[in-house]
Amino acid sequence: MKMISENKSHGGVQGVYSHTSKACACDMTFAVFVPPQAAKAPCPLVWYLSGLTCTHANVMEKGEYRRLAAELGLIIVCPDTSPRGDQVADDTDSWQMGKGAGFYVDATEEPWSEHYQMYSYITEELPSVIAEHFPVDMKKQAIFGHSMGGHGALTIALKNAQRFKSCSALAPIVHPITADWSKAAFQAYLGADENRWRAHDACTLIEDSARFPAFLIDQGGADGFLDDGLRPWLLEEACKKAGIPITLRMQEGYDHSYYFISSFMEDHLRWHAERLR
Amino acid sequence: MKMISENKSHGGVQGVYSHTSKACACDMTFAVFVPPQAAKAPCPLVWYLSGLTCTHANVMEKGEYRRLAAELGLIIVCPDTSPRGDQVADDTDSWQMGKGAGFYVDATEEPWSEHYQMYSYITEELPSVIAEHFPVDMKKQAIFGHSMGGHGALTIALKNAQRFKSCSALAPIVHPITADWSKAAFQAYLGADENRWRAHDACTLIEDSARFPAFLIDQGGADGFLDDGLRPWLLEEACKKAGIPITLRMQEGYDHSYYFISSFMEDHLRWHAERLR
Repeated sequence: MKMISENKSHGGVQGVYSHTSKACACDMTFAVFVPPQAAKAPCPLVWYLSGLTCTHANVMEKGEYRRLAAELGLIIVCPDTSPRGDQVADDTDSWQMGKGAGFYVDATEEPWSEHYQMYSYITEELPSVIAEHFPVDMKKQAIFGHSMGGHGALTIALKNAQRFKSCSALAPIVHPITADWSKAAFQAYLGADENRWRAHDACTLIEDSARFPAFLIDQGGADGFLDDGLRPWLLEEACKKAGIPITLRMQEGYDHSYYFISSFMEDHLRWHAERLR
Repeated sequence: MKMISENKSHGGVQGVYSHTSKACACDMTFAVFVPPQAAKAPCPLVWYLSGLTCTHANVMEKGEYRRLAAELGLIIVCPDTSPRGDQVADDTDSWQMGKGAGFYVDATEEPWSEHYQMYSYITEELPSVIAEHFPVDMKKQAIFGHSMGGHGALTIALKNAQRFKSCSALAPIVHPITADWSKAAFQAYLGADENRWRAHDACTLIEDSARFPAFLIDQGGADGFLDDGLRPWLLEEACKKAGIPITLRMQEGYDHSYYFISSFMEDHLRWHAERLR
C-alpha cells in the first residue's frame, strides 16, 4: 500500500492510498478517514460506495462526512467505482458502462472479466488491506452509498448480512436489472442470462429470500433520475412483502448531487453509529 | 444577473450566478447560499474571500459552510478571486499573479489596470448586485477568507470598519507587501512606489491608524507557507501595539488546504453570527 496524501481534518486524518489489486488486476486508489478516537482503540468501519462517474475523491471532497465521523469515532472508507488504467476495457461513449461504472459486480464476460471484479474487490480484497493497515474493529462494519453506490451497498449488505451491522443508501438504484441506465452494463458484464443478474439487484435478492435487519433510504424529490432509474418505491414494496423494516424519506426539492448527499450525511452516519455501538 | 445553477442543500439554496462587471470589464461568476430563514425575513450577509488559484467554486464545494449557515440563518457570498476571460491580462508562468491572484486591490498599472479592479468590485459593485437580487440585511455584514482571501478580508474590514460587524481569517497573508509570494503582484498592480502598497496590507494599515473591533485568526501549524508567506505573528504584534483584540489560534498539524478550512469553518461562522445578532 502506498500513501498518496494525508491531511489533518476535523481532528482526524483524511488519507488517500493506492495498492495493486489482484482482483481487478490493476492499481486501485481509495480514501480512508481515521478519526481521533482511533489513537486509543480500534474504531468501527463504515464503507461509502460512490455513484456512476465518481472516483474515491468526489465524496471525500464534497460529502461533508469528516465532522460527524470525528464526533462519532468512525473510520470511513471510500473506494473507487471501477478498475482503472490504460489497459482496462472501457466504453468511452457511455458513462453507464466501463470506467466509473463497475456496478459492484464480478464480470464474467469478455472484455470486462479481466479487470471488472468490483464485488470481490469490495467484499474481500479491500477489507483485508484495510484490516492490515488501519486501526479498525472489523467486527463492527456498516455500509452505505449513493446512486450506483447505493445499489452496491444494498446488494452487498443483503449478500453479507452477517458482516454488516447496518446499511443505508442515498438515492440508490434499487432495481438495476430493469432500469434503462443500468441494464446494458449488467448484460455486458454478466451475459445474456437475466437469471444471473438477480444476485446483484436489491429487489430480486429480497424476492429470492435475502434479508437484512433494516434500511434507511433518502431520496430527493427533484432528482431527475427518480422515475426511470432509481424508483425507491420498488424497494419499499419488496421490503414490505419480506417484512424488512425500511424508512424511505422523500426529500422535497433535493436533486441527485452532492448538495443532496452532504445535506443528509449526518442522519446516515448517526444511523450507522447507533447500530455499531 | 444570470443564474447558472441552483441546488437545494441543507434546507437552503446554493446558487451560482454570473453578471457583467463594470469594475472588472468582464463577466464575473459568484456563489450565494441562501438559508431557509430568508423565506421569512432578510438575513445577515457573510462574505468569504478565497485564496490564490481559487474561483468561487472551491469553497462552495469543499468549505462545508452550508450546514452552519442554514442553522444560523446566514447568507454566504463567495466571489471569484480575479477578473476572467480571454481578453484579461495574465501571467501564465506564475500562480501568484494574474488570473486567480487579484489580491483584492485596484490595479493602477498597465496591462493590469483595465480589468484588475477587485477592490472596487468586492466593496462596491458586487454588494449592489447582492442587495438587489437577494434577501439580505445589508446593515448586518461580516467578512472572512483564506490565505490571499484572508488578506482581502482583513484589509477590506480595516478600510471599511463601519460596514462590517465582524472579521476573521484562516491562514491569512497578513503582511503581503514584504512577503515573497505577494510582493511581485503588488509591484505589478500598484507600481514601484511602495508607499501606495501600504493601503492594502493589514499590518501597515493598522500602523497607519486603521482600526477594527476584533479579529479571530486560525493558522495551521503544519502549513508550508507559514514562515515565508503568512506570518500571523506580525498581525498579532501590530494589533497588540494598536490595542485591537486578536485571537490567534495555532492549530497543530493542520496544513493550508480545504481540509483545514472546513475543520474550522464552524468556529468562524459562529464568531460572525454572534456579532451579527
